[in-house]
Amino acid sequence: MKNDILTAMEERRSVRKYKDCPVEEEKLDAILRAGSFAPTGRNLQSPIMVVIRDAATREQLTRMNAEIMGTPEVDPFYGAPVIVIVLADRSVPTYIEDGSLVMGNLMNAAYAVGVDSCWIHRARQEFESDEGKALLRKWGIEGDYVGIGHCILGYRDCEYPTTRPRKENYIYKV
Amino acid sequence: MKNDILTAMEERRSVRKYKDCPVEEEKLDAILRAGSFAPTGRNLQSPIMVVIRDAATREQLTRMNAEIMGTPEVDPFYGAPVIVIVLADRSVPTYIEDGSLVMGNLMNAAYAVGVDSCWIHRARQEFESDEGKALLRKWGIEGDYVGIGHCILGYRDCEYPTTRPRKENYIYKV
Repeated sequence: MKNDILTAMEERRSVRKYKDCPVEEEKLDAILRAGSFAPTGRNLQSPIMVVIRDAATREQLTRMNAEIMGTPEVDPFYGAPVIVIVLADRSVPTYIEDGSLVMGNLMNAAYAVGVDSCWIHRARQEFESDEGKALLRKWGIEGDYVGIGHCILGYRDCEYPTTRPRKENYIYKV
Repeated sequence: MKNDILTAMEERRSVRKYKDCPVEEEKLDAILRAGSFAPTGRNLQSPIMVVIRDAATREQLTRMNAEIMGTPEVDPFYGAPVIVIVLADRSVPTYIEDGSLVMGNLMNAAYAVGVDSCWIHRARQEFESDEGKALLRKWGIEGDYVGIGHCILGYRDCEYPTTRPRKENYIYKV
């Protein structure tokens, strides 16, 4: 079976080198909208998405994330012009799963509008820190939010990555 | 912006009443394939999917899940003819996120081929129990796997659920 939706999930790749070129507002809004329609436990909609585009905040997050990774000279966001931070409300038992489904929809929707993406981890540690908590306050976000992931968005400055083979024992029909 | 992929993510709903009618093998395989192409941390492909269709095992899982929920008279799988259990390898730090992305692809792919779906929780507790561990052994699954979720699949025996409004503060453009 083949259709555009199945193909999107099969052809989408994580991209790790970006041009310094913005993502159109209309495309960004379509991507965020798809994220907001991810299903969530008991429809509590525990996640939020924070969109970062200004250079100063991207540099700050880059420094924070690289420090957590232990390699301060590396750019963990690969020069992407947009960083969508997904966080979720710790008081909801399914918050990690909920936030992850938002991340998945963001990445699939990016593919759907011709934008490249990648999940970048370490959001949890970033927003557990005092510096991260200060950012949330600055952005007007109240409540006990845990970082789930960063979905970076932009246009690739590299060849489209090839598909890597799936492991043999992914599926058990019992 | 509109296209089939964006529409799928917006229109897919969780369905909670199923006909006693199987899912075609070709459709099931397309859904599972999409699941296997979900991105995973460091491409370690930490999840696995176990497909349950026989009545005896579905009844066993129904009993186990209902007992965890504390409501033994309820069918937590809503009569769905297919239960895809997603588990993930605990030794991979991103295992919950990885497994959740597989779940998300399964649900979106189901929509793509006209099959209804819903995420059913409590897989973690199910496969932490001795009974759950015995099932894994019976299925030939070795290793330290944690239950992430059940993706139930089938054809709805109800009206298509309506879209529920998104919360106001889902997206922060800062």
